[in-house]
Amino acid sequence: MKLGMIGLGRMGANMARRLMRGGHAIVGFDPQAEARQALAEDGAQTVDSLAALVASLPAPRTVWMMVPAGAITEDTVTALSPLLQAGDTLVDGGNANYKDTLRRAEKLASQQVHYIDCGTSGGVWGLAEGFSLMIGGDEAAVERLRPVFETLAPAKDRGWGRVGPAGAGHFTKMVHNGIEYGMMQAYAEGFSILQHKQAFALDLHQVADIWRSGSVVRSWLLDLTALALEKNPSMDGIAPYVEDSGEGRWTVAEAIDLDVSAPVITLALLERLRSRDADSYSDKLLAAMRNQFGGHAMKKE
Amino acid sequence: MKLGMIGLGRMGANMARRLMRGGHAIVGFDPQAEARQALAEDGAQTVDSLAALVASLPAPRTVWMMVPAGAITEDTVTALSPLLQAGDTLVDGGNANYKDTLRRAEKLASQQVHYIDCGTSGGVWGLAEGFSLMIGGDEAAVERLRPVFETLAPAKDRGWGRVGPAGAGHFTKMVHNGIEYGMMQAYAEGFSILQHKQAFALDLHQVADIWRSGSVVRSWLLDLTALALEKNPSMDGIAPYVEDSGEGRWTVAEAIDLDVSAPVITLALLERLRSRDADSYSDKLLAAMRNQFGGHAMKKE
Amino acid sequence: MKLGMIGLGRMGANMARRLMRGGHAIVGFDPQAEARQALAEDGAQTVDSLAALVASLPAPRTVWMMVPAGAITEDTVTALSPLLQAGDTLVDGGNANYKDTLRRAEKLASQQVHYIDCGTSGGVWGLAEGFSLMIGGDEAAVERLRPVFETLAPAKDRGWGRVGPAGAGHFTKMVHNGIEYGMMQAYAEGFSILQHKQAFALDLHQVADIWRSGSVVRSWLLDLTALALEKNPSMDGIAPYVEDSGEGRWTVAEAIDLDVSAPVITLALLERLRSRDADSYSDKLLAAMRNQFGGHAMKKE
Amino acid sequence: MKLGMIGLGRMGANMARRLMRGGHAIVGFDPQAEARQALAEDGAQTVDSLAALVASLPAPRTVWMMVPAGAITEDTVTALSPLLQAGDTLVDGGNANYKDTLRRAEKLASQQVHYIDCGTSGGVWGLAEGFSLMIGGDEAAVERLRPVFETLAPAKDRGWGRVGPAGAGHFTKMVHNGIEYGMMQAYAEGFSILQHKQAFALDLHQVADIWRSGSVVRSWLLDLTALALEKNPSMDGIAPYVEDSGEGRWTVAEAIDLDVSAPVITLALLERLRSRDADSYSDKLLAAMRNQFGGHAMKKE
Repeated sequence: MKLGMIGLGRMGANMARRLMRGGHAIVGFDPQAEARQALAEDGAQTVDSLAALVASLPAPRTVWMMVPAGAITEDTVTALSPLLQAGDTLVDGGNANYKDTLRRAEKLASQQVHYIDCGTSGGVWGLAEGFSLMIGGDEAAVERLRPVFETLAPAKDRGWGRVGPAGAGHFTKMVHNGIEYGMMQAYAEGFSILQHKQAFALDLHQVADIWRSGSVVRSWLLDLTALALEKNPSMDGIAPYVEDSGEGRWTVAEAIDLDVSAPVITLALLERLRSRDADSYSDKLLAAMRNQFGGHAMKKE
Repeated sequence: MKLGMIGLGRMGANMARRLMRGGHAIVGFDPQAEARQALAEDGAQTVDSLAALVASLPAPRTVWMMVPAGAITEDTVTALSPLLQAGDTLVDGGNANYKDTLRRAEKLASQQVHYIDCGTSGGVWGLAEGFSLMIGGDEAAVERLRPVFETLAPAKDRGWGRVGPAGAGHFTKMVHNGIEYGMMQAYAEGFSILQHKQAFALDLHQVADIWRSGSVVRSWLLDLTALALEKNPSMDGIAPYVEDSGEGRWTVAEAIDLDVSAPVITLALLERLRSRDADSYSDKLLAAMRNQFGGHAMKKE
Repeated sequence: MKLGMIGLGRMGANMARRLMRGGHAIVGFDPQAEARQALAEDGAQTVDSLAALVASLPAPRTVWMMVPAGAITEDTVTALSPLLQAGDTLVDGGNANYKDTLRRAEKLASQQVHYIDCGTSGGVWGLAEGFSLMIGGDEAAVERLRPVFETLAPAKDRGWGRVGPAGAGHFTKMVHNGIEYGMMQAYAEGFSILQHKQAFALDLHQVADIWRSGSVVRSWLLDLTALALEKNPSMDGIAPYVEDSGEGRWTVAEAIDLDVSAPVITLALLERLRSRDADSYSDKLLAAMRNQFGGHAMKKE
Repeated sequence: MKLGMIGLGRMGANMARRLMRGGHAIVGFDPQAEARQALAEDGAQTVDSLAALVASLPAPRTVWMMVPAGAITEDTVTALSPLLQAGDTLVDGGNANYKDTLRRAEKLASQQVHYIDCGTSGGVWGLAEGFSLMIGGDEAAVERLRPVFETLAPAKDRGWGRVGPAGAGHFTKMVHNGIEYGMMQAYAEGFSILQHKQAFALDLHQVADIWRSGSVVRSWLLDLTALALEKNPSMDGIAPYVEDSGEGRWTVAEAIDLDVSAPVITLALLERLRSRDADSYSDKLLAAMRNQFGGHAMKKE
């Protein structure tokens, strides 16, 4: 089918390409001319405004947003809202907070526009391997887009599904990312223990590679970890500084709202915060407290 | 090659079977006649004593132990020690503490017997899919057993390797299990958050199944989780009671010995302890403390 | 001075009493006649409506709210707002979220009514020992109430202070409670370890009592813990079920918003959530996962 | 009474002084001449060998060790053992692991020498305020030393007690220190949250000082925290580097041995390990993993 793709960055462009390879026609928009140019070379029609994008699509329209969560998603929805008509469908494939999604879906529903939230996992490997799609929204609207989902997913009948009403897709993707934080931290801790055991002089890439076949901890993240360890086993030149996107925080907040104790996902987030605080005030205060009661020396900065 | 297998339980019997399918000859011993009988039906020679087992093998002998860590491993090594001769090899395929392994390897080395520690992962699926083998020990001794490892592993050249000297195999397997605890807990927490979000009425098996293809969190543990959720999505009839084997504890202790902060692996262990303490003294005391300072009501048992 | 006290529950009534003992005059209101009656017997004037309360006070009025955070505080502020005049002061002595306080203070400022947030600690012991008061708001308005704060505090010049503008008082009290969670959990864990060490048959009340004098862990919470342990060292009849008020959650959320890793305060909150989830879904799923890969038996419910 | 004091460092010298002020006679030994000299000036008899120390004491002898746990304690006990006679008492006032204490007590018991473990809290403030003493050992032997304990403690009848047989004193002190870790971390986190909330520009020393009177979190550690914050509220020049002595580690290990989940004490220890690992391998690996799957930029060192 023919659909509009808004946001031609790393994720959006790859999804557009996978769709075109699957026989769909793409009208692409991105504020950056370069991004539009790159996709045009791969066969997409590109336009330089949201209005032109909507005008290029047959009714009922299908518009897929792949833009950063937060203000840009909000602005895009606001700008598209008057351009869309009853029966059109707007898909948010980004990482929006599901509470924002619920609000947006309700607003668009009032003008008979379907709002579908499609949590998308797979990262830069999705173009080749397919994306995992967790979809929320009206059943009929999701069904109409079946050919799109079947193409984006790793296989026609695997790796995608409507998990519930509007918001359910982004909620599920949020929890997916929370789990991802916990798994990554578990691997990172394990390899750090191996790395510190100097007596055994372990080859961490070899260990990761062994584990990839047959072990209980085999996973795609382990495959990637093996790649990272192959290139740079000592992690030379990489700062011990770990960013977090919003979804880990939201998962932690949601767990607490639901009275669910999720210590591992929570600690995985806290470790990322800690990684960025090289000058920890609390640790300094601890050192000062030890000095107060025990006369223990403090290390100077 | 022809080798002895001591311990014909779930793991040992499956490894013996995989070896026989791969063309090796097995002399099996287990104190339980039933276990011997079952393996004999699958083509193994079985014997009813360690002495008979050693006597049935050509020199240099290869004896593989697949018995519970701790006292039984200790007793088995002690009993075998006078029966083995210079040039023989004893493999511990169980989950021994690597410190015990170091001690045992040193003792057997003094009589020119090779001691190989082979951390083994794969569980009940190993018979069909192959086992992941992390091997510690003398290089030449490991090399002599190459045909055995190539058969046990998922493929000739994948899923096994000598990771270092004696002890390194069990050390690596210990950390493997620590990571496993963290990953399992991450999944369990994530699915618990999904399960508690009643507004979305999510089908947890469907979510797990979607994630299996293309998502960042896809893994073999997720495949198994999907199987468990398919059978019993509400976990009816299962007690919230999680055992731990020793390896998680050892990993936590080792991390602290190495001054490595491993909060996720550690908390995954603590959650298992917590799961078995339905009558938590600390929680009762907290309730009593709140009553003391704030006059807050305590729930009665 | 003469002031109005709204909310004559455990905290409000005790504060009113301490103020009267210090020479202040109280006009009390509570929706419950019984609560009014009890305070009237101790010498307060009581009224049966907010309007009557405001009407009974000389301008500029001082009204102190000691009501539950959330809807009741909101409704009370909304009801008082049209009754108050420029120059009056409304104090919120409860545990409001500081973000609500900022909003309320701004709204009342638009009608020249001062809004003071007074985080109050001390619990049921405050009547006798005085309350710890963390105050946010306009400097002059706080200064006008100096006699009130000096009476409520443990001493004229100790245990109270203006810590900053509106919101700063409730913010500081919120963090106070976060610390309290962490301290309580630390004691609870420690006594639980002592209690589980059956070989030493320790008398936990004796230990607490020894620690109260001279030890590094001496504190008021330890004094209370000793009282609880004296009464009921085995915690018989108390359910391992620990409530949480909002402030611990807010502290955890705020720490994450500020990118501060606060693992101990966070885990203290999670343990309370965990204490109330006797039927943990995540623990059941862990048991089911272990069964899947290792064939480990699951305990039945 | 007259007793020997071995180890005249910060703790031992102060305890000797408090004992002399209380009317006891001290024979002091320390390998460092300076330390002996300093105590001699305060009125102690000093000697330059363990043999001389034992020879200077009337039978039954009382010898108090205040030396570092581990090798030095072990060596001292070994050296004293042949010098002591049936009926003598040796007190270990240091922070030994209770398992070592059990072993030493058993060994000395075989020669009718009493071994008393006296967990000692109070730090550098103990000289003035008295020490908190948690005592393990034979009842009659402890009773014979009653005058010593009554002098060292904050008061005759407070702050000391025999908590159980040999080992129970050091066990109790170990858990005391575990609780101390948790409390310190709770305060450190709380003040860090306050410090990061720049909008309120809080004066952390003022907040600590307010909390010291009447609040739920008042404690001796808070008194010391207030002192530290008064001197250096921004913690300038102090490295975020926190040492740990052995007792926190032992508490964590013991909790796990007893199947007690103690997340707050455990995390407080892990945070100290983390504070000393400015170049965290696990954080670098996490950054590398994020780069692998999402193409996220890594910060360079």
